[in-house]
Amino acid sequence: MKRLELRFVAGVLVLAAALMLAAQASAQTDALPSWNDGPAKKAIVEFVQTTTTQGSPKFVPPAERVATFDQDGTLWVEHPMYSQVMYCLDRVPAVVKAKPELANVEPFKTVLSGNREAIAKLPKDDLFKILAATLTGMSVDQFSAEATKWISEAKDPRWKRPYTKLTYLPMQEVLKYLREKGYKTYIVTGGGQDFVRVYSERTYGIPPEQVVGSAGGTKYGYDSTGKPFLTKEPKLLLNDNNAGKPEGIHLMIGRQPHVAFGNSTGDQQMLEYTKAGDGARLAMLVLHDDAKREYAYGPAHGLPDTKVGAFTQALYDEAKKKGWTVISMKNDWKRIFAFE
Amino acid sequence: MKRLELRFVAGVLVLAAALMLAAQASAQTDALPSWNDGPAKKAIVEFVQTTTTQGSPKFVPPAERVATFDQDGTLWVEHPMYSQVMYCLDRVPAVVKAKPELANVEPFKTVLSGNREAIAKLPKDDLFKILAATLTGMSVDQFSAEATKWISEAKDPRWKRPYTKLTYLPMQEVLKYLREKGYKTYIVTGGGQDFVRVYSERTYGIPPEQVVGSAGGTKYGYDSTGKPFLTKEPKLLLNDNNAGKPEGIHLMIGRQPHVAFGNSTGDQQMLEYTKAGDGARLAMLVLHDDAKREYAYGPAHGLPDTKVGAFTQALYDEAKKKGWTVISMKNDWKRIFAFE
Repeated sequence: MKRLELRFVAGVLVLAAALMLAAQASAQTDALPSWNDGPAKKAIVEFVQTTTTQGSPKFVPPAERVATFDQDGTLWVEHPMYSQVMYCLDRVPAVVKAKPELANVEPFKTVLSGNREAIAKLPKDDLFKILAATLTGMSVDQFSAEATKWISEAKDPRWKRPYTKLTYLPMQEVLKYLREKGYKTYIVTGGGQDFVRVYSERTYGIPPEQVVGSAGGTKYGYDSTGKPFLTKEPKLLLNDNNAGKPEGIHLMIGRQPHVAFGNSTGDQQMLEYTKAGDGARLAMLVLHDDAKREYAYGPAHGLPDTKVGAFTQALYDEAKKKGWTVISMKNDWKRIFAFE
Repeated sequence: MKRLELRFVAGVLVLAAALMLAAQASAQTDALPSWNDGPAKKAIVEFVQTTTTQGSPKFVPPAERVATFDQDGTLWVEHPMYSQVMYCLDRVPAVVKAKPELANVEPFKTVLSGNREAIAKLPKDDLFKILAATLTGMSVDQFSAEATKWISEAKDPRWKRPYTKLTYLPMQEVLKYLREKGYKTYIVTGGGQDFVRVYSERTYGIPPEQVVGSAGGTKYGYDSTGKPFLTKEPKLLLNDNNAGKPEGIHLMIGRQPHVAFGNSTGDQQMLEYTKAGDGARLAMLVLHDDAKREYAYGPAHGLPDTKVGAFTQALYDEAKKKGWTVISMKNDWKRIFAFE
């Protein structure tokens, strides 16, 4: 290389380094632009800085940086009904077509009637019958194809947008920020593991192997050509709610998280388990108190809670007592959705 | 910067790049130095090159690069008895001390007698009783502490070395080679998931969240100070052998592997499942045919197989029929252990 070329190469390298430093500095000044300044944002930023700065007394080695997130109501909208329940209800006509004798049997009869009020009033046992009929009995690949198709077409009734567009922008920023700082981000959901895995990677940047959810057994078998496949069985291996969350985390991850985000009593044990570990641990709860931009439910709000968990007054008191940070959607979030 | 400094910086950069290229080239010439040239080594190297070279028709995107490995007999010695069974037998005196009434009850009585022949003859049901008594009923942390202590002290009777030193060097090279090429390496073992997780990271470079094994349920609870903990329950969630291996892979990883290594009929379904995927897939079986350097068992050899799986003549024929590569320890491995 001639001297001029060398000078050019060196110049480009210095410029590139300067640009990288500038980009880094800008990222450090605000990794969470959709958050208002306040105790919630402060708690996240301080925790991340303390645990990822080499030499800090609360430094966490990269291999141990595990962050777990509830999904429904924590990463995306759960009101008025979990999107997976919408999926199951939408699948009922196809199930009845394959088994016409179900048309006059409850709860399928009520679902087919389309009477929303009656459907909303179905007891839990009937809901389980619908889940079993629509989530099991087919091959893993067939389920995945059907769920992929549905999630790309179905729309939330209020915003008229795909459910995957109803993720909370501030939480997407937290996921990204944690990953940039070496945290492995996991979804730990009461929802079906196979269902969430269908869209987790493109929706949250979380690969299927980092989705822990309620999981049924599968059965290995062969098709007529001898090709092996797995069939989804109506046998629950993990009910990933309440105590099932720490149990599921142990089963699937085998490490106690350093970070956990939830929004209901269904997440309480995951937050307790997270905080019970040594060193710095972060536990946060999303409070739905923004009736205008999203919904307001939980303590002191009119709307009923969703069926599995609830943000009760007791949970609120527990959070205050245990040092969990409550995130007010109304006060802490500058923006809620990316499309706004 | 002055011109001389710039020239110096540019020179250093050029030198560094040259060194990196040289290192890469050297790695490419032999990533598997403990393997003799032959069909097995060739199959591995060709598979890795084909699936990780951008533009190759069989290129596999990094996110989908999943490689699964059986442990006992595939990554380390399983003869004459699985090390986890040794652990359980060694724990029996402590269990009987805590519950003296077991001293005169079978199979504990036989284990306490120390009569090796009688112990080896215990039926499967009795073995399960020993596993349940020694692997469950304590907290996850207590089990982990006991297993960690044992694995650091216990020694294999033939080589008089810790079990963790009895891993196969050629397989360690395969793990490392695959990881360098962007594959995520998983252990998929019939052994206990909690047991293997205790040493997997420092023994194989495989973190606990990438260990899939036979797994029992846990129960969430609180100690007298209100601190939460998990108790290991005698309830089997996943029997990770035979059909349980693909079922466990779906449960814990959610992706069909591109690579699978095994050594017995207990791995057959994992290999079938791996090969059933589209594109390039690699399935390999370790054949123990080296009585001198390790052991010889399986087809046409005198020693009995281990209890869970076996390398039967039928498995050998299946491998030939399905295009799985059989690794002869005697012919394909230049060295077996790192300490040799």
